[in-house]
Amino acid sequence: MVSSSVHVLNSHLRDMDNDVLFHIGLSCSKEEQQKVADIFGDVKFFVTGGSSERMTQFAQSVAEVLDIATPFGYSLAPIGSTSRYVLFKVGPVLIANHGMGMPSVSILLHEVTKLLEYAGAHDAVYIRMGTSGGVGVEGGTVVFTSEGVNNKMEAVHEVAVLGDIQQRPSICTKEVVDEITQSAQELQLPYAVGKTLTCDDFYEGQGRLDGAVCEYTSDDKMRFLQYCSENGVKNIEMEARGFAAFCYKLKIPVAVVCVTLLNRLNGDQVLSSHATLKGYEERPAAVLLHYIKKKIDAARKA
Amino acid sequence: MVSSSVHVLNSHLRDMDNDVLFHIGLSCSKEEQQKVADIFGDVKFFVTGGSSERMTQFAQSVAEVLDIATPFGYSLAPIGSTSRYVLFKVGPVLIANHGMGMPSVSILLHEVTKLLEYAGAHDAVYIRMGTSGGVGVEGGTVVFTSEGVNNKMEAVHEVAVLGDIQQRPSICTKEVVDEITQSAQELQLPYAVGKTLTCDDFYEGQGRLDGAVCEYTSDDKMRFLQYCSENGVKNIEMEARGFAAFCYKLKIPVAVVCVTLLNRLNGDQVLSSHATLKGYEERPAAVLLHYIKKKIDAARKA
Repeated sequence: MVSSSVHVLNSHLRDMDNDVLFHIGLSCSKEEQQKVADIFGDVKFFVTGGSSERMTQFAQSVAEVLDIATPFGYSLAPIGSTSRYVLFKVGPVLIANHGMGMPSVSILLHEVTKLLEYAGAHDAVYIRMGTSGGVGVEGGTVVFTSEGVNNKMEAVHEVAVLGDIQQRPSICTKEVVDEITQSAQELQLPYAVGKTLTCDDFYEGQGRLDGAVCEYTSDDKMRFLQYCSENGVKNIEMEARGFAAFCYKLKIPVAVVCVTLLNRLNGDQVLSSHATLKGYEERPAAVLLHYIKKKIDAARKA
Repeated sequence: MVSSSVHVLNSHLRDMDNDVLFHIGLSCSKEEQQKVADIFGDVKFFVTGGSSERMTQFAQSVAEVLDIATPFGYSLAPIGSTSRYVLFKVGPVLIANHGMGMPSVSILLHEVTKLLEYAGAHDAVYIRMGTSGGVGVEGGTVVFTSEGVNNKMEAVHEVAVLGDIQQRPSICTKEVVDEITQSAQELQLPYAVGKTLTCDDFYEGQGRLDGAVCEYTSDDKMRFLQYCSENGVKNIEMEARGFAAFCYKLKIPVAVVCVTLLNRLNGDQVLSSHATLKGYEERPAAVLLHYIKKKIDAARKA
């Protein structure tokens, strides 16, 4: 179905007449490829984050900021199946929630990347927006990931391929990160650029003392967080490493923009008020809306 | 908050006055512990699966099968926050969706296990129900996991704890599995008991040829699936290994019940009709409803 591939690495796809993108609930057949191109061919930004509520809200904000009028008597509606992810297309922006953890993100990335390949949308930037625990930065800081690291501080993502384990570099695209930090600056939001520790759980991997299992001491935890901090880690979450590694492998420009909800050097529980957290959570969205609008305005002028 | 722990392994919890179960959107304080016990103290089954739609449907089926009347003018409603998971309590059954992948399941397990510990519900059985790809068994087969294995066929789940990696055995509880297979027999559904290969992605880890990345041949794939089959693997999915390992570590009785949507020895894409898949997907639910009803009826008589 793809004659020459740009952002996929799979020669088997050439021989398929129809590709069922099972989890997003869309399918692309050879006959309907023009339709797919008509709908998705203009996508320039793919923005994804954990929660479906937050991404639905983001889709509405994109429509407002880009001044994309909703036809009278209609409302924005998710595309495809909503039983795994919600997916919206608003002008040149494709928006989805990715659930929690790298495996959940991975499925979405494979399926969206094939969709955009079939549509001929070859210059989309992928951006994850989310929340995180800060390491040495205060709650409310917008952290831009330079590299996603594991608990040995290596900027690699391990992928099980059949019976083997492959190591793939996890590096964000400097040019994209620079452009988006510019937006954070213009909005006068506190921000930092640094490494992101990506964990496969919220408790033991992140050194929290409040999980159902915790067999280490408070001192062990602080030593680990200090070790992260000394190695340039600014925040901890559960997706950046796999997200950046997938994009790096496929030469897709990528950034990860996560606000910190707390400074983990001061505690584990997220205790700020609902209103404060809500305010923090809106920061990555605000930065990205500003960045996307600026890019689109610049493209129009060019 | 817990004086002597039954199914948690964390002495730090003793010193906490209030525990915010962030992702399920509930909190348990010392003052309200009696309230938590009143609400959740009678939980005997915790049933969880990937999709929120399917688990919402399952909650309604539990109410019907156990004959738990909904008060006039009300309907079943999720507990806590719905932005990450949906959680229902129907009589002695706690029901939640866990999203996709082991990291997402892990967060739910930590938080639900603390909730049940605080509530004093110490004899709950944990069951994951889901869908999977079959290995040498046809679509529609209900597979009961004996052990969750990784791509080296080891029945261990690796957990990053601070800077280390711990290996935890991933074994289901034979007595529980035996009881539930009995229900599958009584319903005359095709079933199998065997190892489950749990992967961190849907494409490369599972040897599919239709991902955005695939750098192996069809022969490589078949060799890997044969290798799985020769080692006793009956199905492939993305959660069983972490789910069983968590429960094994905390001495919680556990089973994993997944229907197969296809036989991976015959292909990768899920091509059965919507109606056929829907019918398959209902099988684990049917088996569990039968099992739960039987257990409750037996407890009433005793």
